[in-house]
Amino acid sequence: MKQKITLKHIARELSVSISTVSKALKNSEEISKDTKDKIQAFAKLYNYKPNNIAISLKNRRTKNIGVIIPDIVHHFFTTVFRGIENYANAKGYNVILCMSDESFDKEVINMELLANGSIDGFIMALSAETQIKNDYNHLKEVAEQGIPLVLFDRITDEIECDKVVINDMEGAYKAVTKFIEDGRKQIALITTEDYYSVSRERAKGYKQALLDHNLPYRENLVLKLPFMDVDELAINEFLDREKIDAVLCVNEIYAIHSMRHVQSKGLSIPKDISFIGFTDGILSKYSTPGLTAVSQHGEKMGAIAAEMLIEKIESEKEEETYTTTVLDTTIVARGSTNN
Amino acid sequence: MKQKITLKHIARELSVSISTVSKALKNSEEISKDTKDKIQAFAKLYNYKPNNIAISLKNRRTKNIGVIIPDIVHHFFTTVFRGIENYANAKGYNVILCMSDESFDKEVINMELLANGSIDGFIMALSAETQIKNDYNHLKEVAEQGIPLVLFDRITDEIECDKVVINDMEGAYKAVTKFIEDGRKQIALITTEDYYSVSRERAKGYKQALLDHNLPYRENLVLKLPFMDVDELAINEFLDREKIDAVLCVNEIYAIHSMRHVQSKGLSIPKDISFIGFTDGILSKYSTPGLTAVSQHGEKMGAIAAEMLIEKIESEKEEETYTTTVLDTTIVARGSTNN
Repeated sequence: MKQKITLKHIARELSVSISTVSKALKNSEEISKDTKDKIQAFAKLYNYKPNNIAISLKNRRTKNIGVIIPDIVHHFFTTVFRGIENYANAKGYNVILCMSDESFDKEVINMELLANGSIDGFIMALSAETQIKNDYNHLKEVAEQGIPLVLFDRITDEIECDKVVINDMEGAYKAVTKFIEDGRKQIALITTEDYYSVSRERAKGYKQALLDHNLPYRENLVLKLPFMDVDELAINEFLDREKIDAVLCVNEIYAIHSMRHVQSKGLSIPKDISFIGFTDGILSKYSTPGLTAVSQHGEKMGAIAAEMLIEKIESEKEEETYTTTVLDTTIVARGSTNN
Repeated sequence: MKQKITLKHIARELSVSISTVSKALKNSEEISKDTKDKIQAFAKLYNYKPNNIAISLKNRRTKNIGVIIPDIVHHFFTTVFRGIENYANAKGYNVILCMSDESFDKEVINMELLANGSIDGFIMALSAETQIKNDYNHLKEVAEQGIPLVLFDRITDEIECDKVVINDMEGAYKAVTKFIEDGRKQIALITTEDYYSVSRERAKGYKQALLDHNLPYRENLVLKLPFMDVDELAINEFLDREKIDAVLCVNEIYAIHSMRHVQSKGLSIPKDISFIGFTDGILSKYSTPGLTAVSQHGEKMGAIAAEMLIEKIESEKEEETYTTTVLDTTIVARGSTNN
C-alpha cells in the first residue's frame, strides 16, 4: 500500500512549512501564487484528498464509520453489525450501513458514496461477486487515499489492511472430529463454491479432519451450491441420493432445511443422521431439535473490527502496520448431535 | 465534531453574498472564474455538503435514500429494508441504513448525520423510546426543511408525511376470529406496552373480535411486556398461571418461545393450545410445528414506502399532499393452529 500523503510529507518534499502547505491548499492570500501552484500541483499528483487529510489532522473527523455487508437477512452479518455498533457507539462513533447484496457494482457504488467524506473509515465483508471477479481496485483506491479499512469474515490477501476472521478451517475440523468421535462414518459437507474464502477454508478443515482420522475424502459426499440461498431441490436430491450419517453445513439455513427434509423422510435426528451448522444464529436455537453449531462469535468479531478501525482512525503514526486477528470457534452442542 | 459548514459560513469567510456562494457551487456563468475557484476550493477543503434546503431545491439530488430502523436483528425490519432496496435500486437510488437501537438519542443523531446532505429523503420506523417520549421535533425539523419523509409500521399522528402501515387491528381481529372459529374459548394476547402504535392497534383488534363473538375481554389474559425482547420468565409464568387454549403474540419471538415452553410442559400444539404470531418471518416457517402467522407483507411495505418517497423526491409540486397507505394482512396457516 502507498503511504498516506499528509501535509507533513508535502511540506518536507517541497521544503516549506506545514502551515504554508495548509494555507496554500486553502488558497490563502498570504501565499504567493507560485508557491500555491507548486503545492497544489504536488498535492494533485499524489492524489492528496483534503477531506481525508483533514480527518487525519483530527480537526474535522466525522466520527462516522461506514459498514458494507453482503446481506442484511443473514443473521451472522447482522450480529457482527451489532458488535460493531456497540463498540463504536461506546467510543462516540456512529455507524452507517450499506448492503452490497452480493453485487460487485453495488459494493463499489456504496464505497464511493461513503468515501466522499461522510465517514472516517470502513468495515467490510466482501460480496460474493467481488470474490468471484477477484477485482479489488475499489478497495485499493480507498486504502491509497489513506481511509482506514478493516475486512472481516470474507477477506482477501490482495489488500493490505487490518482483518478479522474466525478460524474457519479449525471450526470445520472440530465439527467433523466431533462427528467421528460420535461414531459417524459417512460424513457429508454442504457448502458453497470455493470463491467464498470462508467456504474454501471450511472445506479444507472438513477434508483434513477426515484424513487425520483415516477416513476417505469422497467428492460425492460434498455438495457445492453456487449461492448462499437455499437450493432446496439440490439439497433434497443430494440427501436422498447419498448414504450419509452426518452433515456439516456452512450455514444455518442449509442445515435447518436439510434437517426438515430428512425428518420428512422419517429419519430420526440424531439417531439416524446428525447435523452441525455454522453460525449459531437464532434458527439454531429454535429449531427442533436444536442445531449443534459452530459459533462464529459474530458480536465479538464486530467489536474487534471496530476496535481495530478506531485505533487506525485515531492513530498518529505515519507508518502503518496491519494485523489479522483470528478468532477461535466454539462448538455449541444441541440436540442435532449425540452429546 | 466541528460545526457543519453552511453557505452562510462560506459567504462570511470569503466576504461574498450567500447567493454568490450558492451560484458558484452550481458553477453558474454569472460568477467569475476566480471567485468560483476560490469558493469551490474553500467548500472542498471544509468538506462542505450542500445543506438540506439546497436538496429541496431539486438541483442537487444525491440519489441516496436514508433508512432508519429500530433494530437490525428483527426479521420484519430487514424484510422491509429489502423491499425498499429492491424498489430504490431499480429506480437508480442507493440506500443507506442506520439503526436507532430503539433509542431516541440515536434516532436524532442518525437523522442529523444523514440530513447533512448525504440523502434526498428518509424512510423510518420510530424507535420505542421516541414513541414513549412522544417527542417528534427531529422529524418536524426535517419535514420543515423540505426533506421528504415516509414513516412505516411505527408511525405517529404528530407528523404530516406519507405513511405506510398494515391494518394491525384487522390482523389481530382476523387471528382471534380464526381461534374462535376453531372452537377456542380462552384466548390470550402476549403484547408490548401501548406506546408502540402497532401494539395498541393489535390489542384493539383482539378485544373487538372477542366482543363481536360474545366472548368476554379479560385483562388477566393479556400480558403486556415492556420491550420487544423476550422476557422469558414473565412469559413462562403467565402461561403457567392462566388457563389458556390459544395465544396471539405480537411478534414471532414471543410466539416461538411460548410454544417451546408449553411443549416442555407436555402440552400438544395445536391440540391443547394453539398459536398465531405476527410477522411471518423465518422462525415461523422453520419452527416445529410451523407457526401460523399474520403476514405483515414486509417486502411490499418497503417497496411502497420507497415508491412514495421517490415520488415526493422527484415531484415538482410546491403544495404537498400526504397519503397513508394501509396494507391488508393475510393469515398464513401452519401447524400451530387447527387447519
